[in-house]
Amino acid sequence: SAQLAGFMGDCTAVTPVLDLAGIFVFALSGALQGARKKFDVIGMAVLAFFTSVGGGVIRDLFIGVQPAAFRDAGYLLVPVAATVIAFFWHPQVERAMPGVLVFDAAGLGLFCAVGTAKALYYGLAPLHAVFLGVCTAVGGGVIRDILSGERPTLLYDRQLYAVPAMLGSTAMAVLYALDVRGFVATLSSAVLAFAFRILAMRYGWRAPLARGMN
Amino acid sequence: SAQLAGFMGDCTAVTPVLDLAGIFVFALSGALQGARKKFDVIGMAVLAFFTSVGGGVIRDLFIGVQPAAFRDAGYLLVPVAATVIAFFWHPQVERAMPGVLVFDAAGLGLFCAVGTAKALYYGLAPLHAVFLGVCTAVGGGVIRDILSGERPTLLYDRQLYAVPAMLGSTAMAVLYALDVRGFVATLSSAVLAFAFRILAMRYGWRAPLARGMN
Amino acid sequence: SAQLAGFMGDCTAVTPVLDLAGIFVFALSGALQGARKKFDVIGMAVLAFFTSVGGGVIRDLFIGVQPAAFRDAGYLLVPVAATVIAFFWHPQVERAMPGVLVFDAAGLGLFCAVGTAKALYYGLAPLHAVFLGVCTAVGGGVIRDILSGERPTLLYDRQLYAVPAMLGSTAMAVLYALDVRGFVATLSSAVLAFAFRILAMRYGWRAPLARGMN
Repeated sequence: SAQLAGFMGDCTAVTPVLDLAGIFVFALSGALQGARKKFDVIGMAVLAFFTSVGGGVIRDLFIGVQPAAFRDAGYLLVPVAATVIAFFWHPQVERAMPGVLVFDAAGLGLFCAVGTAKALYYGLAPLHAVFLGVCTAVGGGVIRDILSGERPTLLYDRQLYAVPAMLGSTAMAVLYALDVRGFVATLSSAVLAFAFRILAMRYGWRAPLARGMN
Repeated sequence: SAQLAGFMGDCTAVTPVLDLAGIFVFALSGALQGARKKFDVIGMAVLAFFTSVGGGVIRDLFIGVQPAAFRDAGYLLVPVAATVIAFFWHPQVERAMPGVLVFDAAGLGLFCAVGTAKALYYGLAPLHAVFLGVCTAVGGGVIRDILSGERPTLLYDRQLYAVPAMLGSTAMAVLYALDVRGFVATLSSAVLAFAFRILAMRYGWRAPLARGMN
Repeated sequence: SAQLAGFMGDCTAVTPVLDLAGIFVFALSGALQGARKKFDVIGMAVLAFFTSVGGGVIRDLFIGVQPAAFRDAGYLLVPVAATVIAFFWHPQVERAMPGVLVFDAAGLGLFCAVGTAKALYYGLAPLHAVFLGVCTAVGGGVIRDILSGERPTLLYDRQLYAVPAMLGSTAMAVLYALDVRGFVATLSSAVLAFAFRILAMRYGWRAPLARGMN
C-alpha cells in the first residue's frame, strides 16, 4: 500500500528491486531442488514459488493481512522465470551454486529486515516482529523441504541460518525503536545478517545439540 | 455471502450441489488413502476433510477472508459421510476407483473454476486469480499427501493434473474479462478442464522433467 | 481483547495461567522430540513453539483473526523456556515423561475447551466451533510430527487423543447453548476431556481401523 511504501521511506526506490532479486535466488534454489529430486516441471514451479514467497506468505498470515504475494505480479512471474532457467540450464546453475550461496545469504539478510519492518509497521511488539522477520527469511526453505518430502534442514543441519536472521531482525527492531527507519535501517540490518551468515559459512560455526549429544 | 451468491449469478441454484459432490469425491479419495495406509478412523476423517476442503481453505486464507469451510455445515458433514462409507465399504469403493477418477476430474474442473471466480470477485488480478483457482483444485491433494507422510504426487508423478486446472482457471478469467459470468462461465471452464484431464489420462500425456533428465 | 476476556468471564483470572501451563507442557514435548531426533537448538525451539501454539494459530487463521500467539509475549517466551530446560536437562525430563503425559492430557482438555469458546465467541456455528476446538488441541502435535519428518501419530496410532478433545469441545458447545459460560464451563469441559483421556490411556482404549483391517 502507499502508506506502507511511505513508511519504508526512501527504500521504496531500491527495495522492490532487491526484493525481487532475493525472490529470484530463493526461487532458483527451490526449482533446482525440484530438478535434483526428479520432480517434473510442475513440481519445480511449485517449489520455486513456495521457497521464494512462502516465508512472506506465512508472515502476512500471522500478521493478519492478505499476503503481498497475491497482490503483485512479480511474486508469481519471478518464480516462473527461475523455473524456466532451472529447467533448461540446471547443470550450469548447479555448478555456479557456491556463488549462489552468497546471493542466498543476501536474500536471507534482506528478507529478515523487510519482514521485521512490515510486522512493526502493523503494530506488532518488537519481540513478535523479530520472530516474524525470522519466519520471513527461513520459512520458505522449511516449506520447500516439507513439500520435497524431507525433514527441514533448518532444524538439524546445525548451520547458522536462523541465527543471522535473528541478528538482522533484532537490529531492525532496535533501529526502529531509535527512530532510524527507511532504507538506512533496512540496509544496515540486512548487511549485518548477511555478514554474519557469510562468516558462519566461512568458519563453519555450528549450532549446538542438546547437552551431552553429538 | 448473499453478494457473492449474486455474483455467481444463476449458478447459485446448481453450483452448491455440484460443489458438495466434488467435495464428496475428494473426501472419498482422502479417506481411502487413509484406509490403504492403515490409518485409524480419526486419520481417515482428517484426510477426508483436508483433501476435500484443504484447497479451498488455502485459497480463502490467501485471499484474506474466513475460509468458507467454517461457515457451512456441508463442508464438515460431507467428509464425515465419505469417511463412514470408506470405513465400511473401502474394498468395494477401491474396486470402483477407475470410475471415481472420472468424478475426480469433474471435481478438479469445478474447483478450479469456482476458485478462480471467488478470487476475481474479491478483486484479485487475473494472474493471481488463476493461481488461486489452481490452488483450490490441487491444494487438497498436496495436503493429503503431506499428512500421509508422502511426497506430494502432484510434484513428481508427471501426470497432467495442475495443467488442466490452469487451463480451466485461465478460461474462467478470460470469460470474466469478457463479462461472461455466472453458471455459463463456471460450467464451460469446468468442462474444459475436465475434458483436458480425461484426455491426458486416456492418452498418457506427461509433464516434462528438466532437460536432460529421464 | 478486553471483550473476549469479558466473555470468558471469571475465568480470566485463572485461565491465562493454565493456558501458559498447557503451552509449557506441549512446548516441552516438542523440544524433547527435537532432542530425541538430534535436532540442533534451533530445531528444538521451532518444534517447541509450533507444538505448543500451532493448534491455536490454526484455529485463529480458520476463524479469520490474527493469531493470539503474535500478540502476547508469553506465547513466545514460554516455548523458549521449555527449549532451555530440554536443552540442559532432557535426560531428566525424559525420565519424568510418564508423569508429563498427565499434564499433556490436562493441556489437551484445556485447549479444546478454550478453542471451542473462542470460535463460539466469534460467531461460528456449534459444529464448526467443536471442530476448531479439536484443531486447537491436536493441531500442534500434527505440525510437530510433520516438521520432524514423521507421519502424524494422531492419524494412525489408534490412541484416543482427538476423541477426548471432541468430547470436551462438544461439552463446551452444549454448555454455551445452555448459557453456562466462563470459568465453570471451561473447567468442566476440560476436566471431562482430561478424565476421558486418562481412562483411555489407563485401559488402552483404541480407535478402530477400517472394517476388515488389523
